[in-house]
Amino acid sequence: MSTSLQDMTNPLEFLAFEASFEEAEAVVFGAPFDNTASFRPGTRFAAGQMRRDSYYLETYSPRQDRSLDDHQIHDAGDLVLPFGNPAKVLDLIEEATTRILDHDKLPVMIGGEHLVTLGTIRTFFDEALSHATVIRKCWDILGDGRIHSYGIRSGIKEEFDWAKTHMDMNPFTLSGIVDAPAKIGQAPVYITLDLDVLDPSVMPGTGTPEPGGVSFNELHEALLSLRGLKIVGFDINELSPPYDPSGISTAAAVKLLREMLLMTLAKA
Amino acid sequence: MSTSLQDMTNPLEFLAFEASFEEAEAVVFGAPFDNTASFRPGTRFAAGQMRRDSYYLETYSPRQDRSLDDHQIHDAGDLVLPFGNPAKVLDLIEEATTRILDHDKLPVMIGGEHLVTLGTIRTFFDEALSHATVIRKCWDILGDGRIHSYGIRSGIKEEFDWAKTHMDMNPFTLSGIVDAPAKIGQAPVYITLDLDVLDPSVMPGTGTPEPGGVSFNELHEALLSLRGLKIVGFDINELSPPYDPSGISTAAAVKLLREMLLMTLAKA
Amino acid sequence: MSTSLQDMTNPLEFLAFEASFEEAEAVVFGAPFDNTASFRPGTRFAAGQMRRDSYYLETYSPRQDRSLDDHQIHDAGDLVLPFGNPAKVLDLIEEATTRILDHDKLPVMIGGEHLVTLGTIRTFFDEALSHATVIRKCWDILGDGRIHSYGIRSGIKEEFDWAKTHMDMNPFTLSGIVDAPAKIGQAPVYITLDLDVLDPSVMPGTGTPEPGGVSFNELHEALLSLRGLKIVGFDINELSPPYDPSGISTAAAVKLLREMLLMTLAKA
Amino acid sequence: MSTSLQDMTNPLEFLAFEASFEEAEAVVFGAPFDNTASFRPGTRFAAGQMRRDSYYLETYSPRQDRSLDDHQIHDAGDLVLPFGNPAKVLDLIEEATTRILDHDKLPVMIGGEHLVTLGTIRTFFDEALSHATVIRKCWDILGDGRIHSYGIRSGIKEEFDWAKTHMDMNPFTLSGIVDAPAKIGQAPVYITLDLDVLDPSVMPGTGTPEPGGVSFNELHEALLSLRGLKIVGFDINELSPPYDPSGISTAAAVKLLREMLLMTLAKA
Amino acid sequence: MSTSLQDMTNPLEFLAFEASFEEAEAVVFGAPFDNTASFRPGTRFAAGQMRRDSYYLETYSPRQDRSLDDHQIHDAGDLVLPFGNPAKVLDLIEEATTRILDHDKLPVMIGGEHLVTLGTIRTFFDEALSHATVIRKCWDILGDGRIHSYGIRSGIKEEFDWAKTHMDMNPFTLSGIVDAPAKIGQAPVYITLDLDVLDPSVMPGTGTPEPGGVSFNELHEALLSLRGLKIVGFDINELSPPYDPSGISTAAAVKLLREMLLMTLAKA
Amino acid sequence: MSTSLQDMTNPLEFLAFEASFEEAEAVVFGAPFDNTASFRPGTRFAAGQMRRDSYYLETYSPRQDRSLDDHQIHDAGDLVLPFGNPAKVLDLIEEATTRILDHDKLPVMIGGEHLVTLGTIRTFFDEALSHATVIRKCWDILGDGRIHSYGIRSGIKEEFDWAKTHMDMNPFTLSGIVDAPAKIGQAPVYITLDLDVLDPSVMPGTGTPEPGGVSFNELHEALLSLRGLKIVGFDINELSPPYDPSGISTAAAVKLLREMLLMTLAKA
Repeated sequence: MSTSLQDMTNPLEFLAFEASFEEAEAVVFGAPFDNTASFRPGTRFAAGQMRRDSYYLETYSPRQDRSLDDHQIHDAGDLVLPFGNPAKVLDLIEEATTRILDHDKLPVMIGGEHLVTLGTIRTFFDEALSHATVIRKCWDILGDGRIHSYGIRSGIKEEFDWAKTHMDMNPFTLSGIVDAPAKIGQAPVYITLDLDVLDPSVMPGTGTPEPGGVSFNELHEALLSLRGLKIVGFDINELSPPYDPSGISTAAAVKLLREMLLMTLAKA
Repeated sequence: MSTSLQDMTNPLEFLAFEASFEEAEAVVFGAPFDNTASFRPGTRFAAGQMRRDSYYLETYSPRQDRSLDDHQIHDAGDLVLPFGNPAKVLDLIEEATTRILDHDKLPVMIGGEHLVTLGTIRTFFDEALSHATVIRKCWDILGDGRIHSYGIRSGIKEEFDWAKTHMDMNPFTLSGIVDAPAKIGQAPVYITLDLDVLDPSVMPGTGTPEPGGVSFNELHEALLSLRGLKIVGFDINELSPPYDPSGISTAAAVKLLREMLLMTLAKA
Repeated sequence: MSTSLQDMTNPLEFLAFEASFEEAEAVVFGAPFDNTASFRPGTRFAAGQMRRDSYYLETYSPRQDRSLDDHQIHDAGDLVLPFGNPAKVLDLIEEATTRILDHDKLPVMIGGEHLVTLGTIRTFFDEALSHATVIRKCWDILGDGRIHSYGIRSGIKEEFDWAKTHMDMNPFTLSGIVDAPAKIGQAPVYITLDLDVLDPSVMPGTGTPEPGGVSFNELHEALLSLRGLKIVGFDINELSPPYDPSGISTAAAVKLLREMLLMTLAKA
Repeated sequence: MSTSLQDMTNPLEFLAFEASFEEAEAVVFGAPFDNTASFRPGTRFAAGQMRRDSYYLETYSPRQDRSLDDHQIHDAGDLVLPFGNPAKVLDLIEEATTRILDHDKLPVMIGGEHLVTLGTIRTFFDEALSHATVIRKCWDILGDGRIHSYGIRSGIKEEFDWAKTHMDMNPFTLSGIVDAPAKIGQAPVYITLDLDVLDPSVMPGTGTPEPGGVSFNELHEALLSLRGLKIVGFDINELSPPYDPSGISTAAAVKLLREMLLMTLAKA
Repeated sequence: MSTSLQDMTNPLEFLAFEASFEEAEAVVFGAPFDNTASFRPGTRFAAGQMRRDSYYLETYSPRQDRSLDDHQIHDAGDLVLPFGNPAKVLDLIEEATTRILDHDKLPVMIGGEHLVTLGTIRTFFDEALSHATVIRKCWDILGDGRIHSYGIRSGIKEEFDWAKTHMDMNPFTLSGIVDAPAKIGQAPVYITLDLDVLDPSVMPGTGTPEPGGVSFNELHEALLSLRGLKIVGFDINELSPPYDPSGISTAAAVKLLREMLLMTLAKA
Repeated sequence: MSTSLQDMTNPLEFLAFEASFEEAEAVVFGAPFDNTASFRPGTRFAAGQMRRDSYYLETYSPRQDRSLDDHQIHDAGDLVLPFGNPAKVLDLIEEATTRILDHDKLPVMIGGEHLVTLGTIRTFFDEALSHATVIRKCWDILGDGRIHSYGIRSGIKEEFDWAKTHMDMNPFTLSGIVDAPAKIGQAPVYITLDLDVLDPSVMPGTGTPEPGGVSFNELHEALLSLRGLKIVGFDINELSPPYDPSGISTAAAVKLLREMLLMTLAKA
């Protein structure tokens, strides 16, 4: 007879990700940081809420006909991040991502606001921190033509003008994403999914709701069209549970986590 | 001068369904049961909330150019159901449906969780209760090829595999429903509408929000394409008002009740 | 065997008030009117929400050791009131109250905003309509010293100054109410309960939340101290369900309805 | 050194509309009136909530590649309107609109319920008030064939029948709007945008949620197709913030205000 | 250098209860069961929500001047309970409690609805299951005079009459609890805290909000007056997070868990 | 005839504070900053929400029998504060407060989180910034025995121990505040009101709800007992509107602003 209650209880992890760090193919961690200038803070609660609500999502994807039960995934919990010190936050995210990569595992981060992406990008590409927006900072690391952006629909004029020159920008819709595999080939790809690409009807729980986004199925299909790429890591960010009274935003985020894990790990 | 206040007051029924049981063509009743394993309980409140919010829906359907004012419908109130005893719940639903059918009236049930459908199905087809999911239990009664399923988008792998063999399963979208009349002909049809076929943006107030569903107009058109069938009864289930803070889910359920009544009674 | 479902279903009335108009001691009706200048409209939903939530309140009052099961009460539903025409609204309320009194039954009205009280007051005391606040209009009918006010805690200076001269005003608390029976004796008393005498922590769902009100138990005890009076009618008003996301305001209103009915009918 | 804090603070206006009345091309004002028969009141809060939430919307429209920073707009605040007196409300709206037109500025009104539109329409076309619905009253002023209606999807049968004869009615969708410029030519056009043309998933915060509406992008494109018209004024109405717990309805209303201002002022 | 992220992350347990089962003085587990007849289901989410919100509560109690940091506590997660089978649920709770007691640790259960208490009570006192309410069933096990009840304020007349004979019932307030130590002496005591003893203003998030309860400080002081007793276990039940939109109910539950742990473990 | 709409419209300020900076006795400004470690961010919305909801509060205080109509107050709007740079935020608050004091007006700040208080305190007492909690930093400026704290009920042990030595700390209740005038005499007093001294039932909308606080009336009376002091400025902080779905927290904050202004300006 067991002396603890382990055999009687639910795990506390995302979607029952019970693998240990050592045995895992992928390591998921939360980056609960919403320190800067978004309209409505709350992304710090995203990973916690997604864990709570993920118990009711099936591990099987009918669309992909594949299941997370066939993979080893570790939930490392949430990073301890110092509010009010973004530079340190990015260092900690970079350190966590490095540890995961050093063990040849797929890093999967749950934001937090979009700034957290910079921490993981730096891990892959190792450059200095400048003072600009997230996308501009990523460009400082990556250079012209290496950022592919889909579905952006708001910003100031200067950002749009700059992006036309330095990025592969495909605004408003996701229709151009089917051409991404041909453009990118087998170069290593890091995917950052800003959930506010979704219309606020689908994703009310986000920092700055911007009407006119894509539907869940449009995003789902767009992501699946990237299955042939060499994906080296990804993050999902900008879920803000305090603005999601009906829970549908968290439900969308959890399902996208499942689908992205399955399409990425499929190639292993 | 009237001695009561009846001439001065609103009725308490759905959409002003003031006909008596005797004079009615259709009898609507609530089955407020949410006893089993849905993520977020609350479907027991569905019929009550739909009654309260139905006073503001017009009885006229511009889409069908027909009105409920031309029909006699009785609202029988909500069944008294024993929580914690699903077998007894199904018996009571079966008894209520039998009484309605014995008087040659159309039975219309408002769930409750989807399990309640089994009670009405048994009335029509009279078989034993097995231990499986709702759809599987319905198949125990109906047999291969007699269940037509449209728009399902989640479940475990075994359910999908089983359904491919035993049912006419059309997953993910409702596009195949236009072929239903040709498939089914004039066999008697019972329609069970699980409201979570709708996208959570349209129907946040449901037990388990599953992103990627159909729009209201897609569902509306799909239902209208069934107008030629011989519909012997229907139910609408899985509305959970506690998760519908803005009231849009209840509004959708009430409108669908109107549309389904009109398309069914049209043939009388 | 019954041909309808009546024996299987819950009634749609308040607290199972199933008596007919003829057999009833008391007649409850809703006055869903929120037409004028309250901060946050929504009192039109009060009676409907109270009906829905009343099924879960026991008919027995441990505090009074008496039960509504020992009384005959009729729920007449909600009056049909024309928005945008307060004069007509008051006429309709007066007509309904008159009908009830003509049959020697206790009238019990569920507002609606506080203006509805004027309709019932006019029934008892039959005077002309002037242009002023509700309390001032009631004074036009009743005259000096016949209005006893407890617990008011906001208003403009002129109202307070006027009230000191013409009314028995006891502001801020309900402590003075224990002296009411001695003051009033066996004169007929109509009680109007403005629910915002309760603190907003107890009654968030009201038109204009004013911090600093009384607790539920203070109100409960104050009302019970009036048991010796000759109560000829009462109303409960200013519940606004849209501002009551947790349902506690409706729960308080329903319990107060039970307690006031029991203390009033006790004398019959 | 400044003696006030003006240089340190945010303005309290919509989208930083800091121009004075005198220097403005357009004047925006709120008409916080929700007095009549909508299901769920609350439109009186629309302008206030839109002001609060507008600080986070960019003044630049990527879709139109134009910015509000290039225009002079004045926010006049909210009209002081007497609840319970719709005739006076319409007079005040007409007076405000007249003042704006007398100074050759574009009037832009934020409702309030849809009735407020009648106040501005009367300014342009100067006729008597009859007793009918808003659209019928506008027709009293305008006559046959001068009202173009798009996307209506509910009402009573008599309204639909009447509208077929007297108006250019295009129900259910906005697809016909591309033909409007050809129909209308350079006649002066007043646009009234009833936000409940949007589906309740996009606009839950409205008086009467009616499932089956258009998406944000469909509405956005439809409006932009009117850019060639001679627009002499417009209003946006029926936002009800109390039924918008996640804030997405207000976000949509604010963005539409920006887009309509840009497309109208573009021609100046 | 660590190979996992354990040193960088927050634990997923309640209040950072990081002790292993073996080293713990007390073992906390969730019993997420809300199967029967409460008005508003949702207690199944209580333990999950309390975990998420507990990270922001200090482990130090200023009132007791003691800290949880000085104790070893294990969070075992939530039991896996079969909805729709209360008898099996109680067996599983009894088995879990037995395992904890077999290792001389304090069992602490987080409900779930109040029925879950029966599972732990049976562990201590080992009797058969009868068919009655929870309190009646506990009496079947314990017999006359061994149940001490404080603060109950609703129920049917028969329950109150029965309780007067068989229990030490102290209804409405907690004032009598100061005499409990004298009554009980050093007999083993199991405490079940039904959170709806609190007023709904303090605890809106509960299954059946019943106005007229005690304040947080009244409950806090009442509990602390039991510090001298020999407490062998306790549970906290009836928190329903879906009805707690502002989070104050969960905050109260988490603080009470801290205070009860500190007052119980103090004696070790 | 007026050329603008100014005579027809409501002002956009708090409680109709229409005085200009020059003519004002008191200047109110918002400090919308919630950058650091509170559990639930959102205090940045406090001043905006209080403005919107203040239109419905009377300017007359029955409790003090005085009215804001007899005073000249200026609403300066909200400071523009850089998220992510607390040092700069404090500088800007200090600069704003200095400007107000330089013109012999009373500064009144609406937070924002409690850190904002440090900005105003520095204005009065002019010292360097150290690294510690707000209260500790204030002590760096003020020194032993000059901080009087009432009603604190949570924190870590070290903070409580430190406070006992260096401050006049009166934890848990406000009962000791009646002695404050005797202790303080006519020394200049700055009052900072952290709204979470109120119980979460009264003030759910705050960053970290801590059960066991005082009632509104206890706080109201405590503040009024300070009327004899020489108050040189005050702030009200920690209101978080996103966690106040029923609006009662904002209502309490607005009423406290009125009461504190009246008691402070009374002496002028």
